[in-house]
Amino acid sequence: MSDDEKPKKTKPRSRRDPPEHSALQQKSPAEFFADNKNIAGFDNPGKSLYTTVRELVENSLDSAESISELPVIEVTIEEIGKIQFYAMIGLCDHERVDEALYEDYETAKSREKRLRKDFLKQEREAMNASLGKKVQEPASTKAMKGRGETSIFRVTCKDNGRGMPHDDIPNMFGRVLSGTKYGLKQTRGKFGLGAKMALIWSKMSTGLPIVISSSMRGQDFVSYCKLDIDIRRNIPNIHKHEKRDNKYKWHGAEVQVVIEGNWTTYRSKILHYMRQMAVITPYAEFIFKYVPDPDVSDKQNITIRFSRRTDAMPPVPVETKHHPSSVDLLLIKRLIAETLKQNLLQFLQHEFVNIGKSLAERLIGEMGPGFSPKTAVKSLTSEQIIRIHQLFRQAKFDDPSGDCLSPAGEYNLRLGIIKELNPDMVATYSGSAQVFEGHPFIVEAGVSLGGKDVKQGLNIFRFANRIPLLFEQGGDVVTRTVLKRINWTNYKINQAQDKIGVFVSIVSTKIPFKGTGKEYIGDDIREIAAAVKVEHFPFLLNVIY
Amino acid sequence: MSDDEKPKKTKPRSRRDPPEHSALQQKSPAEFFADNKNIAGFDNPGKSLYTTVRELVENSLDSAESISELPVIEVTIEEIGKIQFYAMIGLCDHERVDEALYEDYETAKSREKRLRKDFLKQEREAMNASLGKKVQEPASTKAMKGRGETSIFRVTCKDNGRGMPHDDIPNMFGRVLSGTKYGLKQTRGKFGLGAKMALIWSKMSTGLPIVISSSMRGQDFVSYCKLDIDIRRNIPNIHKHEKRDNKYKWHGAEVQVVIEGNWTTYRSKILHYMRQMAVITPYAEFIFKYVPDPDVSDKQNITIRFSRRTDAMPPVPVETKHHPSSVDLLLIKRLIAETLKQNLLQFLQHEFVNIGKSLAERLIGEMGPGFSPKTAVKSLTSEQIIRIHQLFRQAKFDDPSGDCLSPAGEYNLRLGIIKELNPDMVATYSGSAQVFEGHPFIVEAGVSLGGKDVKQGLNIFRFANRIPLLFEQGGDVVTRTVLKRINWTNYKINQAQDKIGVFVSIVSTKIPFKGTGKEYIGDDIREIAAAVKVEHFPFLLNVIY
Repeated sequence: MSDDEKPKKTKPRSRRDPPEHSALQQKSPAEFFADNKNIAGFDNPGKSLYTTVRELVENSLDSAESISELPVIEVTIEEIGKIQFYAMIGLCDHERVDEALYEDYETAKSREKRLRKDFLKQEREAMNASLGKKVQEPASTKAMKGRGETSIFRVTCKDNGRGMPHDDIPNMFGRVLSGTKYGLKQTRGKFGLGAKMALIWSKMSTGLPIVISSSMRGQDFVSYCKLDIDIRRNIPNIHKHEKRDNKYKWHGAEVQVVIEGNWTTYRSKILHYMRQMAVITPYAEFIFKYVPDPDVSDKQNITIRFSRRTDAMPPVPVETKHHPSSVDLLLIKRLIAETLKQNLLQFLQHEFVNIGKSLAERLIGEMGPGFSPKTAVKSLTSEQIIRIHQLFRQAKFDDPSGDCLSPAGEYNLRLGIIKELNPDMVATYSGSAQVFEGHPFIVEAGVSLGGKDVKQGLNIFRFANRIPLLFEQGGDVVTRTVLKRINWTNYKINQAQDKIGVFVSIVSTKIPFKGTGKEYIGDDIREIAAAVKVEHFPFLLNVIY
Repeated sequence: MSDDEKPKKTKPRSRRDPPEHSALQQKSPAEFFADNKNIAGFDNPGKSLYTTVRELVENSLDSAESISELPVIEVTIEEIGKIQFYAMIGLCDHERVDEALYEDYETAKSREKRLRKDFLKQEREAMNASLGKKVQEPASTKAMKGRGETSIFRVTCKDNGRGMPHDDIPNMFGRVLSGTKYGLKQTRGKFGLGAKMALIWSKMSTGLPIVISSSMRGQDFVSYCKLDIDIRRNIPNIHKHEKRDNKYKWHGAEVQVVIEGNWTTYRSKILHYMRQMAVITPYAEFIFKYVPDPDVSDKQNITIRFSRRTDAMPPVPVETKHHPSSVDLLLIKRLIAETLKQNLLQFLQHEFVNIGKSLAERLIGEMGPGFSPKTAVKSLTSEQIIRIHQLFRQAKFDDPSGDCLSPAGEYNLRLGIIKELNPDMVATYSGSAQVFEGHPFIVEAGVSLGGKDVKQGLNIFRFANRIPLLFEQGGDVVTRTVLKRINWTNYKINQAQDKIGVFVSIVSTKIPFKGTGKEYIGDDIREIAAAVKVEHFPFLLNVIY
């Protein structure tokens, strides 16, 4: 057993428990996420497959946009059969010898029957697998949702983005809780975990390493890196890290993981995700491929190309300073530690938005004795920082502007809706910047009627920082607003029979997700409920009628 | 500025960004939770107050039960007025000089008006603050829910539990991600964060340290410890750590934190929590006190005593081994690293439940060449471990027994319901152990009709591992079952008019919480939906009628 698996003991056990138990022990952050993988969206193998796809796609989008490159993203999910998997891990395949040991022994016949049924259902669904038409979960699949028929999948995501510096690659994937500095920006990412969590999941479910190819603009080589993560020590285990020829002057990244997953239970969510990404990002080109196990002859390849419809990319979100009403004690201390400004006056002016020189002077005056414009900011005591924090909370500041934000853009939103739904009518609206807890946000909305593959009734599509939100729809502020606070009959729309598409996109430097799945925005946030309802839908619906 | 605040830079910045941005940086686990405090239930100050109370109460219960002591727990929430707070942090109070700087300047008059209105509402609600009667959230308070009228609170929790070893105290509070070993047990705690998160929140909102007093049975001293947490380095900052006289031979712990909170918005949740704790834990005595700011004369003290109703404590949950179908690759590796057994045969028999000697021998036979009963378990290769994992997934094992679990107990559940609701009728049921993903679980249920302070309609109370679940009720399997899958009229119960209490308690070595708030159990887990519905309610309802 290698060194990395041995637990470290910090101190002799002193509780009244039997020797092997209850000793305090330091867990690494990677271990924490391995033990609590549902925080990051890895609740079960099917969800893990979905989350892996979305993390890789979102990283790729961010990467291409950061160098102002129109994104081209190829996602491939290949099912790996048992024999191939064993070959990959260096085991010979084992014939079953002691049949009665196995869980599914008794049901071999009924299992064959079920597989045939599933295949026929799947054929039917592949034809219905468009955005509006909900794909029916087969009853047998629902019943197995706990773990179900899991398989091994290789997930590959290739982009034309910025790539990564050669030496940074191992730490970017193999070390949990590396993050960027404390600036504030509208970002797609959630915890900064991204592909690392997929790597942790692969370590837990297949043991196989992640493979990364990357090249940056102007580099004459392609970085090739194969690594896994030492979960106990939270460091990368590098299998290979070399430079290869870059014959075609490619730039971008290709990331490949081999994980346990479940295509059957999450296929429709994955396809919906890709389609909704195409709606909100019509300036990107996506190619999605699903390749079933070649040894199982009854499944079909799926290839879907989401073509680019516009060359107009929204501006990249801009990093901004914090608004004084949004900072806590800890953040103030961090900003003090990092600032290049020497004195308090300059610190206030430059490290926060909406504090100009004269307001800074007044604030310093109000802080009391012991504070002056020339006070050395790095020598402020804890008590003084508490005083500043208190004042920040009580004083009045102008609301932050939305200039640092990058909404989808009304034009692109409309284009995306038309492209994917082909509705009879569509109206869009882009709101002005509002504020919640010191963070600016913008709400954009669209309503569509009709469309060839659209389900009857209300079809709600939610986006936060230009990522589709597919889960926990029930409690979301958008859903609640649309279902409960808008009287559709006022606009001569039949909520049950007409084919209605409702699109709401919120961008912010801090999306106030509820709970930690970060899949929905709580209905109790008054500012957002108001923005979603008041401003947009009556206007839109008046436009339609 | 002290050393602990300086960020560490790992490597020269090499991306194409302006110098101050985007350098990779290692975040400590404490920083991670500070930045993502809503994972741990610290979404906003009001919720933080609630979560702090419950973490401390649950720790105290676990502590008393672990030494088989009938729990006595005192919880006190004291509002700290501004003047007192400034004195505590060593600042003199500041008179407002530059009035126009302040947010609330214009509205001083209307603010007075609102405070008077709030007081009258609060008096009314204090009288209604019983379990069944829902406390109406004042409209003005809802509108301010974002941050609202936050104040500073000292939260104290005192118990008669086991206490803590003197030297362990700083690390138990000031180091995030210390955890116990890899055994499996039904526990109340969620992430092992507990009071540490309250300490992080206090550091972020008030800067004040946590104060712990503790003594263990037989100790002739009381440990007194004052500390805060260095979030950057994830270590405790000890202000004081001494031994004091233990005149009255006390044992237990008293923990005190000073945090920002919001009593107005979360008062009803906190009171509901305490009452539901009393329902599910009738062998404990709880004393709850709320002490408002003495300088604000218009608020009342609240003191509620939840008396003990029985001396019958359920057995303490027992630590158990893992079931082979529930382990992932990582866990197998950890178990191998920690086992005291030498060879594979003994490892399989002793480190897992439901693998007896003959099954172990058959499994080893099925694993293939390279495996024998005498194989040294610590020299297994990664590939061999993958093979074992695969076989664990495919083979058939007996379901784990529920013997390690400790349900509330039908007697105690009934007692608690009667005590708190005073219903006209009550029926209870305790199910046999079931299995989900290799973990045993037991469902117990109760239904009551009538009761003096019970609201009309369905009142649903959920418990997981004997902790009340108060949030995210809508998506919970219990709610869905009760609302949608039971035809109450079959039992001559009027779902809208009768006063119905429904209590469901689930205990398990692993509660399959959905999302990460760990506040509800997903409705998609078939085994639990079935157990909640099929077994219990028809039986109960037949008992009633």
